Amino acid sequence: MNPSPADSPAFSSPPLLPGIRNPSDVKALTAAQLPQLAAEIREEIISVTAQNGGHVGPNLGVVELTLALHRVFDSPNDPFVFDVAHQGYIHKLLTGRGGEFFRKLRQTGGASGFLARSESPHDAFGAGHAGTALSAALGMATARDLRGTAEHVVAVCGDAAFTCGVTLEALNNVVSSTRRLIVILNDNEWSIAKNVGAISRYLNRLSTNPTYNRIHHDLEKFFTSLPRGAEMNRLYMKWKRETKDFFVESSLFEKFGLRYLGPIDGHNLDELIKNLEFAKQVESPVIVHVLTKKGQGLNAAIAHPERFHGLGAFDRLTGESKKSAPGTPLNYQDVFGQALVTMARADPRIVGITGAMPSGTGLASLAKECPRQFFDVGIAEEHAVTFAAGLATRGIRPVVAIYSTFLQRGYDQIIHDVALQNLPVVFCMDRAGLSPNDGPTHHGLFDLAYLRCIPNVTVMQPKDEDELVDMLHTGLSLEGPAFIRYPRGAGRGVRIKERPASLPIGHAELLREGSNVMIWALGNQVHEAMELADRLTREEGLSVGVVNARFAKPLDRTLLLSHAACIPLLVTMEDHVLSGGFGSAVLEVLQEAECTTAVERIGWPDRFIDHGSNVAVLREANGLSPEAVFERVRARWRNRNSASVEASAV
Amino acid sequence: MNPSPADSPAFSSPPLLPGIRNPSDVKALTAAQLPQLAAEIREEIISVTAQNGGHVGPNLGVVELTLALHRVFDSPNDPFVFDVAHQGYIHKLLTGRGGEFFRKLRQTGGASGFLARSESPHDAFGAGHAGTALSAALGMATARDLRGTAEHVVAVCGDAAFTCGVTLEALNNVVSSTRRLIVILNDNEWSIAKNVGAISRYLNRLSTNPTYNRIHHDLEKFFTSLPRGAEMNRLYMKWKRETKDFFVESSLFEKFGLRYLGPIDGHNLDELIKNLEFAKQVESPVIVHVLTKKGQGLNAAIAHPERFHGLGAFDRLTGESKKSAPGTPLNYQDVFGQALVTMARADPRIVGITGAMPSGTGLASLAKECPRQFFDVGIAEEHAVTFAAGLATRGIRPVVAIYSTFLQRGYDQIIHDVALQNLPVVFCMDRAGLSPNDGPTHHGLFDLAYLRCIPNVTVMQPKDEDELVDMLHTGLSLEGPAFIRYPRGAGRGVRIKERPASLPIGHAELLREGSNVMIWALGNQVHEAMELADRLTREEGLSVGVVNARFAKPLDRTLLLSHAACIPLLVTMEDHVLSGGFGSAVLEVLQEAECTTAVERIGWPDRFIDHGSNVAVLREANGLSPEAVFERVRARWRNRNSASVEASAV
Repeated sequence: MNPSPADSPAFSSPPLLPGIRNPSDVKALTAAQLPQLAAEIREEIISVTAQNGGHVGPNLGVVELTLALHRVFDSPNDPFVFDVAHQGYIHKLLTGRGGEFFRKLRQTGGASGFLARSESPHDAFGAGHAGTALSAALGMATARDLRGTAEHVVAVCGDAAFTCGVTLEALNNVVSSTRRLIVILNDNEWSIAKNVGAISRYLNRLSTNPTYNRIHHDLEKFFTSLPRGAEMNRLYMKWKRETKDFFVESSLFEKFGLRYLGPIDGHNLDELIKNLEFAKQVESPVIVHVLTKKGQGLNAAIAHPERFHGLGAFDRLTGESKKSAPGTPLNYQDVFGQALVTMARADPRIVGITGAMPSGTGLASLAKECPRQFFDVGIAEEHAVTFAAGLATRGIRPVVAIYSTFLQRGYDQIIHDVALQNLPVVFCMDRAGLSPNDGPTHHGLFDLAYLRCIPNVTVMQPKDEDELVDMLHTGLSLEGPAFIRYPRGAGRGVRIKERPASLPIGHAELLREGSNVMIWALGNQVHEAMELADRLTREEGLSVGVVNARFAKPLDRTLLLSHAACIPLLVTMEDHVLSGGFGSAVLEVLQEAECTTAVERIGWPDRFIDHGSNVAVLREANGLSPEAVFERVRARWRNRNSASVEASAV
Repeated sequence: MNPSPADSPAFSSPPLLPGIRNPSDVKALTAAQLPQLAAEIREEIISVTAQNGGHVGPNLGVVELTLALHRVFDSPNDPFVFDVAHQGYIHKLLTGRGGEFFRKLRQTGGASGFLARSESPHDAFGAGHAGTALSAALGMATARDLRGTAEHVVAVCGDAAFTCGVTLEALNNVVSSTRRLIVILNDNEWSIAKNVGAISRYLNRLSTNPTYNRIHHDLEKFFTSLPRGAEMNRLYMKWKRETKDFFVESSLFEKFGLRYLGPIDGHNLDELIKNLEFAKQVESPVIVHVLTKKGQGLNAAIAHPERFHGLGAFDRLTGESKKSAPGTPLNYQDVFGQALVTMARADPRIVGITGAMPSGTGLASLAKECPRQFFDVGIAEEHAVTFAAGLATRGIRPVVAIYSTFLQRGYDQIIHDVALQNLPVVFCMDRAGLSPNDGPTHHGLFDLAYLRCIPNVTVMQPKDEDELVDMLHTGLSLEGPAFIRYPRGAGRGVRIKERPASLPIGHAELLREGSNVMIWALGNQVHEAMELADRLTREEGLSVGVVNARFAKPLDRTLLLSHAACIPLLVTMEDHVLSGGFGSAVLEVLQEAECTTAVERIGWPDRFIDHGSNVAVLREANGLSPEAVFERVRARWRNRNSASVEASAV
């Protein structure tokens, strides 16, 4: 049962998808109708993602699997936990989130690109970061056992989840936690890039060993087709054990106490449904190994699985990504990647480390140009950090490129392995600030707070892409850890200097003098600050200066205190939450100097920020539009002014 | 070659240990002298730890292993990476850190209880948290490969390390990172408590399968004894592969691409040395499975392995822990543990989760009284947090008891799985503040900063053990995540109320009125604040109030602003670093209210705090003695006073 490519749907009967409001509608279809529904789903996904961007490949790969899950199980009573949850589009379409809501996928007011408990009761567990499904599902299964209810708990994990420490910790705990859990291993040999590591190699052998496949498959199929299949299969499993695990390749998961079913063709609905029905009856934790193809049904996605993992709008006929407007500057990640190649060529001690994201982080160019100096460790941020620490102890200069939000995974390693030992590791944190279409799991809004408390660290943010290169160069010359944060997307289009500058540590850059208000801005907020200063000057007649802070730690105390001594209002601007962020660092310095100059802090409020069509929309919704910021600073100036007028009147 | 129990050393020749200054002195001994050295080392460890406390059991278990390592390898050229590094006492004694320095183990000016790069060039990598050794060693091996040098890299991991995600991430990366790495698996069937999970069961089978042991052992022994043993063993390995992994139990590590050697008697020096010599020649990553006995050589330690994992001073004859002085209050952890038992008995939805520390966290009483409601997940903090989140989605009320410093391991899970979904999980963080004898890897000084930036969380610290129970009760009634931090050691000895109170969220407790200075103190600093207030009143004639803040988040803005409006100086006191901590939260509230009242913040400075004999010594060394704090506040008051006098004179 090969699905017809969605590029050319070949069904003439009336469409089925509009009639699917909830999983019971899926169950009500005949088996013969399912391929048509699958094709319609593919068509809908391709059409919406071609417009809005999204995780095309992963979703096209799990159309049949998701249909099978909803045929066999009873969501939300049987909770499904999708790992990463970027492959949940079909699940959304089958649980009342199709139509206009889905067509606004990843846009303001539309469906999230991930699953979220706030979006639907069918989303048993939200995600966005990889590797949590098995752990959460074990919690749910344990809750069921404690409460004495009977539901099935189903975790759907990609093969890359098994590069994550949290998945492996959970895997080690399955045997002691529950006797009933269904784990779907959705194996497409990919994480975001081609999957890495021993488990990936093992799965590959498992999927390609013809002897194993033939014998195991035939038997399994035979048993599951029998009326007393469960019992027969138990006998078969027993025989397998007694023959000393003759099917040796299946034994890894069995060592962890999970029964193994598979490998199963993930695009064959009959086979999927039969095996899932069988898994329901197994009286032990079971792993169902499903082979899927990323991008199934869209030739371009099959041909370019890494690009089509997740991408912006594309042309569905050619598969080409929508061209940026002419003159759009390079992305920060690409500037970083190219600069690192130059530096790594000049200094063989420099290496780059990514956690399964060579393209997203810009390290793909290093992988291509200096492959010996490039390491992809899988979705294994903890290991990435400690591995870098180990390298640094022996004279290597590692650059760890991990998005701000994912670096949270390596937090203890940053403190315990890098900072405490004061090792020279450079961390390049892309996606610091908003990742607007992705939403709260992907915004990088906490890093200044979680890093600033750690001794020995230097934390920087460049105002533009040229300064990013300077900071990388500077970071690589330090004798301790350095963190560079920068936002998602295009730089400011400035020219990159021929030779990067060494920035003096803890020195800010005064960009514009001012005597009424001084704006201390960090990173991408410098540009906003310049516009704000212009407007305050123009409309309010104020003398407003701007500082490019460069360093969130150590702050330029000298310059800051010199400003505090003679300028009545300081404004801080940061692309980060206000609690514990850059503005708080400014408050701390002023307090330590016993200085009570008025400060207004501009940054993100204390709530999780939703997804939305773009940064501007989300800033607007959170009181951070240029207009709102202007109003706040003007009001603060007037208050402050009237307060001091009152004071001098007294 | 059974070591003589150190309780009764039986050697009459002159002592050897005083002559051991560095590893070459170990190499210079005859094989026949080693048992005597081992016995002297055991005697030294028992005698020092009986006095100072420390990790008795783990060190007594690795005496022969560490001697063998120093006989076979060449530290520091060949780096040793000891996981957790609590088992490094012997390594210290053999690398120039014996004598007086070792006798002041875990005391001010003496040897650290862990390894640290700052203490010796023989400490290739410092630690204190579990699971990092394999990852760091892989970094070192990769650095060697990049640099083209030839040293051996040796990681020494306990079996419990394989419950840690970071170890498992590294294990998955071995094959793609290096072809030469020696991993010693020091298997004593224990983490801090009895080890848990599938890998632990697997190791147990591996060590106890008589068929496997006999055949494998004999062959391995035979080969390693031959002159061309390496080659022979290669053939043997090949044969093993071709017989489809007949020795099935050894295959888990081989699936990860490591050759497996063992199991080996970890107290037989000859066998250890022969196997390590053999491991040096293996041209692939190799795991050497060494069976050791925690506490070997001290009967009390063998009989009570959990207590003797790490403990305070004890009587070396009876094995009894030194009694606390009569009237010493219960530890916070025990108050917590007992309160949780009471609550869990009343409400079956309540469960407790620990990461391998039932005793240290106080959950041992829950394990005993309500075993179905107790979960030990191993040293797997990431899983602990997401497992709790999964439980919480299905109506269970999990209490996760993890030390402040170890909770850093679950940081991303706290944000992504618990807080973003606003799930009701209660976190009880013991060891918030100093763990003085343990030092920088164990101090819990960052949690307020790393938690305060996260939306949806409530963060509390009780002033005493009765309020801890109130906070646990309160946390369990919340609909979102709650964090309760409290210090290591004894409470204040207050009576625990019959029925715990529900604390109003975000309300502080005014303990003492004052009009000149108001001290806002968090948790254990409330008592210090009361003493400071007394002294300021007595010696300076000031009117000083004290607030028990209770909540670091949400802060009691109303009370704080009412104080700021009429009291000239606010003082904050916290057992936490100043960057981003409780005092910064106070500054933020004041800034948001456009209030410029003077504030003095008392907390830990921006550096890693060393180990030391006790909290008082370390506070003294960091400017936080009662005297120093008094001086600072007095000076600030006088400055402020003179400043306002000047202002009014103008």
